[in-house]
Amino acid sequence: MNFPSKLIEDAVSEISRLPGIGKKTALRLTLHLLKQKEPVTIALTDALINLRKNIQYCVICHNISDKSVCSICEGHKRDRSVICVVEDLPDVLAIENTNQYSGLYHVLGGVISPIQGIGPDELKIETLFKRIDNPSNDVQVKEIILALPATMEGDTTSFFITRKLKDKGLNISSIARGIPVGSELEYTDEITLGRSILTRIKYSAE
Amino acid sequence: MNFPSKLIEDAVSEISRLPGIGKKTALRLTLHLLKQKEPVTIALTDALINLRKNIQYCVICHNISDKSVCSICEGHKRDRSVICVVEDLPDVLAIENTNQYSGLYHVLGGVISPIQGIGPDELKIETLFKRIDNPSNDVQVKEIILALPATMEGDTTSFFITRKLKDKGLNISSIARGIPVGSELEYTDEITLGRSILTRIKYSAE
Repeated sequence: MNFPSKLIEDAVSEISRLPGIGKKTALRLTLHLLKQKEPVTIALTDALINLRKNIQYCVICHNISDKSVCSICEGHKRDRSVICVVEDLPDVLAIENTNQYSGLYHVLGGVISPIQGIGPDELKIETLFKRIDNPSNDVQVKEIILALPATMEGDTTSFFITRKLKDKGLNISSIARGIPVGSELEYTDEITLGRSILTRIKYSAE
Repeated sequence: MNFPSKLIEDAVSEISRLPGIGKKTALRLTLHLLKQKEPVTIALTDALINLRKNIQYCVICHNISDKSVCSICEGHKRDRSVICVVEDLPDVLAIENTNQYSGLYHVLGGVISPIQGIGPDELKIETLFKRIDNPSNDVQVKEIILALPATMEGDTTSFFITRKLKDKGLNISSIARGIPVGSELEYTDEITLGRSILTRIKYSAE
């Protein structure tokens, strides 16, 4: 595309660097900003610059935070004996939204992926082991819940962590994989269905 | 969603004001920027601020421009006797990309839409009539091509402009509506197909 203005061209080229946004969408967003009043663009850019310059990561769980220790790690009502290991911030948000979990988190910042050149050293795995050995507030960690993606990379990461922790006497579990609530059996892929039979849950008559 | 950081919350809320971007996409884009180095965010915000503060509109055709007269209106090779009327900048880019048009443009900045409260006075229509009455470089305008969207609003705008110009002795045309090149007849909607029969083009045997 030949743009009539260098300013438009620069804006479109920068916006289209964002994942999932092509040149046409970038142009649409650019023209939208031009049609809005100037404070709209300034509010957007200020928010982005503020974020990039002032963001911190919790020194304990590596979750994004405004302070050096995040509100979850600081929380008085959280169960400090359980740590849920997740890939990234959206997973923390998703689990928090369920209101089913009151323990702590550990954000790896990714999963092991040899193809993308991501090994254990590129992730925040070592600090997880340190947390278990030297627990904060002197509350012993008893359980690790692995809530990593149901992919080859996620499974590899879970396997790696499980093997490293095998002699620590911890309860290690993975979140259940199976048929999503509300789904029909016939439309479920065979791997999920097969796993859900293998890992079936016993009903008690009581 | 409850965000662990006010900075993230602000960034997500500002990004999700953009058209077609919801909270989840906004969060994904925000986390992407956080994973990149700081200059990436600064380049993006600088481009947006520069654009918003320094953008100009061509005083003749209202196209976006770096200068007070855009490169098309200034161009020596353009045919100044033809003006193509379009809704907005992307239409100019699309027509320029065809390499089939060498005249000038007139960018209305929208189309007449009573539902959205957009009347002729909200658009750059009056300046089109002035351009025709007082042509720049003293080249008389001979032809107006209406290249407005094939919608009710686009047709209303075309009709309004045509009626206002009816006594000026101009050639007024609209871009052809019909079956897109490469399309099958059976998959074309009936209104398009019906119009394409009514506005059929005569083949000459020469």
